[in-house]
Amino acid sequence: MKKTFTFFTAIQLLWLPLLAQEKLSGFKIQNIPLQHDIEQKFDAGLNKENIGATIKELSANPHHLGAKGSKTVAESVLKKFKSYGWDAKIETYYVLFPTPKTRSVELLGSNKYSASLEEKVVKEDLSTAQQGQLPPYNAWSADGDVSAGLVFVNYGLPADYEKLERLGISVKGKIVIAKYGRSWRGTKPKIAYEHGAVGCIIYSDPKDDGFVKGDVYPQGAYKPEFAVQRGSVMDMVIYPGDPLTPGIGSTKDAKRLERGDAKTILKIPVQPISYHDALPLLAALKGQVVPTDWSGGLPVTYHIGDGSTLVRLNLAFNWDIVPAYNVVAKLEGSKFKNQWIIRGNHHDAWVNGAADPVSGLASLLEEAKSIGKLARAGIKPKRTLVYIAWDGEEQSLLGSTEWVEDHADELNSKAVAYINSDGNGRGFLEAGGSHALENFVSEISKDVKDPQVGANIFERWKANKAISTVSLTERKKIQDSQTLDLGALGTGSDYSAFLQHLGIPTLSLGFGGEDEGGEYHTNFDTYDNFVKFKDPDFEYGLALSQTAGRAVLRLANADVLPFNFSNLQAKIATYVTEVSTLAKQLREGAQSQNKLISNGAYQLANDPKENLKNPPVQVELPEFDFKALNLAVDSLKTASSKLNHTITATLASDTKADQLNNLLFQAEKQLLLQAGLPGRPWYRHSIYAPGLYTGYGVKTLPGVREAIEQYHAKEVQEQILVLTTSILKLTQFLNQTNHP
Amino acid sequence: MKKTFTFFTAIQLLWLPLLAQEKLSGFKIQNIPLQHDIEQKFDAGLNKENIGATIKELSANPHHLGAKGSKTVAESVLKKFKSYGWDAKIETYYVLFPTPKTRSVELLGSNKYSASLEEKVVKEDLSTAQQGQLPPYNAWSADGDVSAGLVFVNYGLPADYEKLERLGISVKGKIVIAKYGRSWRGTKPKIAYEHGAVGCIIYSDPKDDGFVKGDVYPQGAYKPEFAVQRGSVMDMVIYPGDPLTPGIGSTKDAKRLERGDAKTILKIPVQPISYHDALPLLAALKGQVVPTDWSGGLPVTYHIGDGSTLVRLNLAFNWDIVPAYNVVAKLEGSKFKNQWIIRGNHHDAWVNGAADPVSGLASLLEEAKSIGKLARAGIKPKRTLVYIAWDGEEQSLLGSTEWVEDHADELNSKAVAYINSDGNGRGFLEAGGSHALENFVSEISKDVKDPQVGANIFERWKANKAISTVSLTERKKIQDSQTLDLGALGTGSDYSAFLQHLGIPTLSLGFGGEDEGGEYHTNFDTYDNFVKFKDPDFEYGLALSQTAGRAVLRLANADVLPFNFSNLQAKIATYVTEVSTLAKQLREGAQSQNKLISNGAYQLANDPKENLKNPPVQVELPEFDFKALNLAVDSLKTASSKLNHTITATLASDTKADQLNNLLFQAEKQLLLQAGLPGRPWYRHSIYAPGLYTGYGVKTLPGVREAIEQYHAKEVQEQILVLTTSILKLTQFLNQTNHP
Repeated sequence: MKKTFTFFTAIQLLWLPLLAQEKLSGFKIQNIPLQHDIEQKFDAGLNKENIGATIKELSANPHHLGAKGSKTVAESVLKKFKSYGWDAKIETYYVLFPTPKTRSVELLGSNKYSASLEEKVVKEDLSTAQQGQLPPYNAWSADGDVSAGLVFVNYGLPADYEKLERLGISVKGKIVIAKYGRSWRGTKPKIAYEHGAVGCIIYSDPKDDGFVKGDVYPQGAYKPEFAVQRGSVMDMVIYPGDPLTPGIGSTKDAKRLERGDAKTILKIPVQPISYHDALPLLAALKGQVVPTDWSGGLPVTYHIGDGSTLVRLNLAFNWDIVPAYNVVAKLEGSKFKNQWIIRGNHHDAWVNGAADPVSGLASLLEEAKSIGKLARAGIKPKRTLVYIAWDGEEQSLLGSTEWVEDHADELNSKAVAYINSDGNGRGFLEAGGSHALENFVSEISKDVKDPQVGANIFERWKANKAISTVSLTERKKIQDSQTLDLGALGTGSDYSAFLQHLGIPTLSLGFGGEDEGGEYHTNFDTYDNFVKFKDPDFEYGLALSQTAGRAVLRLANADVLPFNFSNLQAKIATYVTEVSTLAKQLREGAQSQNKLISNGAYQLANDPKENLKNPPVQVELPEFDFKALNLAVDSLKTASSKLNHTITATLASDTKADQLNNLLFQAEKQLLLQAGLPGRPWYRHSIYAPGLYTGYGVKTLPGVREAIEQYHAKEVQEQILVLTTSILKLTQFLNQTNHP
Repeated sequence: MKKTFTFFTAIQLLWLPLLAQEKLSGFKIQNIPLQHDIEQKFDAGLNKENIGATIKELSANPHHLGAKGSKTVAESVLKKFKSYGWDAKIETYYVLFPTPKTRSVELLGSNKYSASLEEKVVKEDLSTAQQGQLPPYNAWSADGDVSAGLVFVNYGLPADYEKLERLGISVKGKIVIAKYGRSWRGTKPKIAYEHGAVGCIIYSDPKDDGFVKGDVYPQGAYKPEFAVQRGSVMDMVIYPGDPLTPGIGSTKDAKRLERGDAKTILKIPVQPISYHDALPLLAALKGQVVPTDWSGGLPVTYHIGDGSTLVRLNLAFNWDIVPAYNVVAKLEGSKFKNQWIIRGNHHDAWVNGAADPVSGLASLLEEAKSIGKLARAGIKPKRTLVYIAWDGEEQSLLGSTEWVEDHADELNSKAVAYINSDGNGRGFLEAGGSHALENFVSEISKDVKDPQVGANIFERWKANKAISTVSLTERKKIQDSQTLDLGALGTGSDYSAFLQHLGIPTLSLGFGGEDEGGEYHTNFDTYDNFVKFKDPDFEYGLALSQTAGRAVLRLANADVLPFNFSNLQAKIATYVTEVSTLAKQLREGAQSQNKLISNGAYQLANDPKENLKNPPVQVELPEFDFKALNLAVDSLKTASSKLNHTITATLASDTKADQLNNLLFQAEKQLLLQAGLPGRPWYRHSIYAPGLYTGYGVKTLPGVREAIEQYHAKEVQEQILVLTTSILKLTQFLNQTNHP
């Protein structure tokens, strides 16, 4: 027995450093037990019933930007932070905010129909009958009163307009009706406008989140007949935040643009409607039947419209400047008070917002409560924590963008990382962010238990990914991997200004995938709905607190900040392969298609009765030179690898890591482009940006990728150079950290 | 000038044999001009207005098997053949034919609903109001009066039942409701029965061929609310034709099985209904919401049914023996009267059948008319032509199967080829059949003009295929190819007995793809519908006559029969690659899935609220030995190639080709299996068969492929041997023809 014991002990001693290090990146071995202890105590301070109570309290009434309810929520959040022992205050910005004055959508002619534009009360859920709700509308629509022929444009994607073009249909001078989904809503009226439309109606087709998907609320989670998705249609891929103060904080006295000069406000009127209101409009459309895959779930044959179906869209807004209340709470670091770990979730909602945003906010507050309790017990974070509840997120990140722009200098020198959430539900960890944090998130995901199945959230995520992967080779790769895929971030929540404007390392965390429904941005996003369909026992609320709280506490206490640039480098290498493959595919695709055109294949194949036009002759992109870019990516690999050795050595030694840390958290900023992206200087990150035509959807290596997608050969080569330079800048910066 | 002229003349002389041979396989160079002349005269005798008039005449009244209208049509066709100078007669068989006595589908319980089971009159089309229509029903349903819980089974495919199994739902003792489409209708109740269901309702979902697809009749071509697809549900993948006389002709005195012993008659009651009648049934279903891709186009949330929705299905039939009138017309060959070129199309319809079958029959009759005129002018075919209008096709190939079985001996020695059609419409050539005829059909397709675009039908077919192919490599291959892909034949029309029972080389010809609609097997398949939506000017009727007529006349007059076994060999080689790849994929897929199961991945990933079961542990097929099979395929390659040289030499010489021809048209028979396919001895072709679970859909190399698909490892190896033997038999046979 003794011998065996000794044997195992020896083995354990041998493996311990490696095991421990794998388990807790960034910590010296002797500090790991303490951190584990802190996390255990942190967990003990979390309470899921309390998360539920917070959701109930903060979603009790409508609380949109500028509303009385929103101020009440901000003040309640402030009080909570203070009661948790944090140094909290409200920082107010003054932002433009259009609210509807006139809203009407009418079908003219013999089948006259006036859209109700109201969400009916569901008697089983009394929240839906409250006062003070914002009616359904799209913020940043233009004022306008237009009457024109109606044209159905499917989801209003660029590809849909290409199809219309081939069908010989123009939307010039027309009002378009588009389905919600497949792209960010704001790109729909933008693309319509670029094609000459004078108005835009957006509706939720029951095939996407209504009765076709499942039973509707309150029997099921899907969209009932009268529900309407509200939402911003700001052109936020140019810049988010207050349209009048791009790049600067919209303080009371900030210099503002004239409204007419603000590039992000739409040029045409836009109104969202329910599928109840959409039915008479769609039924009235004549002309060609839509392409097969354009049909929705309403019981009519969908037609594109021949221009004879006249619709009047009449919208006017109050263009007020309103206060946006960001609630900012600080807990000063015991050792590095000028290194900030920032954690945020917005507090404003379109209506009650139980899921969006309150479910995420409640987890954030629960973290703050538990951390506050630890601090009172003397367990303070080494770095300063900044917890923020944002206002005006729904109108396109107003509160967060203005705050970041206002505090840019301070953030540039102090912000180590920003951790965002924006609602939460039952399901799988959905994590996105800066890839230098990919290993870091993977580690955390192995330390948090999934509340439903008991395994850790990494194992559950991995099982789900393996099962849903068709390719057996890919599936095997997933099963063999110990890394959780971190998604790249586009936009759509409060991280944008941090990541894409300032280059601050960012994480976005939340659970979901088993909480599907149709309540998003409707007055059905209520507490009753939430406890029935989203996260009935608030277990995933607890899991989010555990996950995000660990991210905060590990970043706060790490001996060496847990960035791993080899992860980032690997992703960049993948993206470079993607864009070079894309260029090749588009080139060969264009060559092949142009040959079909010149051979007359379309004329031969098309149904002569349909008068389908040829697709346009496509630019055949030249072969681009990716050599220098690939060399830059290689050099980053060497530098990252060396840096990882330096980090390992530092952790194993008694050396102080201050200088290393200072450099580490500044590294991602090296990827910022001084001039920003083409046509949108506010977006400066060379690796991540929202897509010009996808909105929320990310485009990685955006300068190069979008130039390729838009067939701008000259810009592609320019942007390859810009990207190469940016990557080399990071390489040099990391090489510098190798000799601290 | 002179020099140039000489130069070109020399080149022309040099190339002429090659060019000519490419243009007209099977003809000695000196006979090609004559054949071209015959074809020109044949074309001149065709008249599209006459085709239209025939369609109008023969679809004027309902004319199903056993009806007065059917006898009228048969007699009218007989008269036409005779008036064209053919030796025609009616050959009558006596076949079992169930017609409905009692039909009722009722929703029981509080939402009581009694299905109308009637197709309403469309006032714009008076044919829909005629007397003598067969009401909507499925022939070969069992008699039965069952009441049971209703379960929605999507399309009723094997994969749908696998999904139900995972959802924990059994259809044992239940009545299932399945959508038409995705599989042959007869497999739906068969699979339901195999899973323990006691009844089956089939309906046409508007998403498949109703208002979701386009405007409904009479505004558009798609299925109106009350339309119902009739059709046979005989288990014809066991054997088609009269269930009481498998393998023999059902002459008056034929020995018949007891009805209860006939394996192809369904064991449970089956009834087709309209989407109007389906709506209340589907709306009444409770329990789980269907998987996302199971939803149809009706305006309800589709549920699977929890057993509480009770339905009564009460069906009874008259099981009469009725006469089936095959109209058989002969034109004796001037040289080889014992070599028959057979051409057929059925004449019976479910109701009026303007498209199915009359549009194809009218083209056939037009060919017979023109050929008759040629014969009267002294231009007789060298081989005997047999033109046949079949009866009882709709009840599962009764007329053709009984005739072929009855004449099997004569056909075995005389039938050179069978050319089938079964309706026709606007669009592209759709050709299927024996691959030794692939080049032959390609040549014809280059000699017939598409009536809409002017180019030949091969060019149009090719352009369409190129455009609809996504893979650029595949697309390039198509653009470079001079061969029209001949599809492999499963079943569903009158060729089955010829091809799959007797091994007679077969072609199936027709145009379509621009004639989509929902009239199939309804009382809306009328002349009015046809001229509005199918082939308004009968141009494609003319094109079919030109195509099929050329096939007949070239086969009839060829010096050497135009079979090219290199084409067949290439296809077989492709199929062998397919099945070996399939075996590998299934093996690896099973291994990967079994690993997911044993690792508990499904338990981890599945939504615990859904109680989704693991998929079953799958048999991991062993590695099969395809070596001998591949060698056999190689030997066939050598033999085919040698044979082609022999043919070329024969055509270039003055040698008589009689012996070569005798062998050539017997070659495909060598691929017949003495014992037939496993479990269905009637089907004897080792290369082509209808799928056991796809019905009409073909399975190539059926013995091997289906054993793999059903994970019967032992049977796979056995069937590889059987197939190898069969291919070697053909090889030996062809080798024999190399030395005529």
